[in-house]
Amino acid sequence: MSEQKKELALYTTIKFKIIELIKSGKYKVNDQLPTESEFCEEYNVSRTTVRLALQQLELEGYLKRIQGKGTFVSMAKIQTPLTQKIRSFAQQMQGRNSKSEVIELEVIPANQTIASILEIEEKDPVIKLVRLRYADKEPIQYHTSYIPWKVAPGLSIEDCQNSLFEVLRTKYEINISRGIESIEPILSDEVVSNYLNIPVNSPSFLSESTTYDDKDSVIEYAQIITRGDRTKFVVEQSYNE
Amino acid sequence: MSEQKKELALYTTIKFKIIELIKSGKYKVNDQLPTESEFCEEYNVSRTTVRLALQQLELEGYLKRIQGKGTFVSMAKIQTPLTQKIRSFAQQMQGRNSKSEVIELEVIPANQTIASILEIEEKDPVIKLVRLRYADKEPIQYHTSYIPWKVAPGLSIEDCQNSLFEVLRTKYEINISRGIESIEPILSDEVVSNYLNIPVNSPSFLSESTTYDDKDSVIEYAQIITRGDRTKFVVEQSYNE
Repeated sequence: MSEQKKELALYTTIKFKIIELIKSGKYKVNDQLPTESEFCEEYNVSRTTVRLALQQLELEGYLKRIQGKGTFVSMAKIQTPLTQKIRSFAQQMQGRNSKSEVIELEVIPANQTIASILEIEEKDPVIKLVRLRYADKEPIQYHTSYIPWKVAPGLSIEDCQNSLFEVLRTKYEINISRGIESIEPILSDEVVSNYLNIPVNSPSFLSESTTYDDKDSVIEYAQIITRGDRTKFVVEQSYNE
Repeated sequence: MSEQKKELALYTTIKFKIIELIKSGKYKVNDQLPTESEFCEEYNVSRTTVRLALQQLELEGYLKRIQGKGTFVSMAKIQTPLTQKIRSFAQQMQGRNSKSEVIELEVIPANQTIASILEIEEKDPVIKLVRLRYADKEPIQYHTSYIPWKVAPGLSIEDCQNSLFEVLRTKYEINISRGIESIEPILSDEVVSNYLNIPVNSPSFLSESTTYDDKDSVIEYAQIITRGDRTKFVVEQSYNE
């Protein structure tokens, strides 16, 4: 094995050793970790190897580094159940204090992609709504919705402070019936990283969701970026043949 | 805005323009993309900006670059339904040709973490099974299972070529009852990237799954790394109040 390959294999070993120490409770939330030199000595590896392991653990949300203070164990991730029932952000956050901040609300002409997803004509008016969603005062999701104008004409900023679906249901009398959501891992870009307060290129979730009313018309298409360092999705499954 | 910030914001714009051209079908699977200089000219941006956009799109699986040939549009992702029913890998791959290759099968003493998850004593024997799973000859998942020895004493390589749960059910008479699975986005490390044939640090899924029998004993704990460039999870949801 080349020197460089050896180093890469080694940092993975160190990384998983540290994860194990966190999972077993040896290192607890907010505990300060040993310094880089202490790790070098303990595992008898180079500083580069230790640094690579710590950097990846930081990007993956296990650790946080505080300038001039050191490296600390991060909070456990928010576990969001993935159910086959549409649930509001507040419900997903399970008892944490959730809130939404409207970053952008404007009417735009549908481009080709959005028109085809929303099943409307190109240049038809579309409401673009960007919200930053918080759990316990921490930004968790960067949520962009596209809603055909005719679904919610005159939707206001006040309408969007809480559950959008609740407003569609009560104010616009939309009968929400079903949705389909896909989930992919992505790297956070500059703009979203800034809002979510994470390093650029952090591993994150991209969810795309399309929601339909009871006449099977599309009422919303959303692109949702969720912090991977603070969230995991959880699915409960049963085995029936 | 500083010059560097401007560049970072610009590459995001270029990146989403290219995604849109792929989604709208302007660029089709296996189509060759314009060269870096052609992109620079078309969008009037620097080569660094174009390169950043193309690199991220490659890591996210939209594009593949072939040395000496150019940049091409990748295949669409495999859509894996996330259901509340335990399904085999073959079922998840929906009609694609699936197969498993056993990379490692050995009996190891449980360390503290594994013992606590499997609800056994430290140093109790555990079967560690590592499999590489393919869809249409392409490696998709790196799957590590930990099974208490007493659940499947003498499990053989032949047993693990197809569905492990099927073998547990028929040969070991285990009544599989339920499971819980969590999903996180991570960066692929050196070892896994090698097996999955992707660049190191590609955005990937890490699933951790714990499966129980009808007496609520843990029969398997698994860590599954799935390529993010080739897979998305899909959830169908309905709205009932």
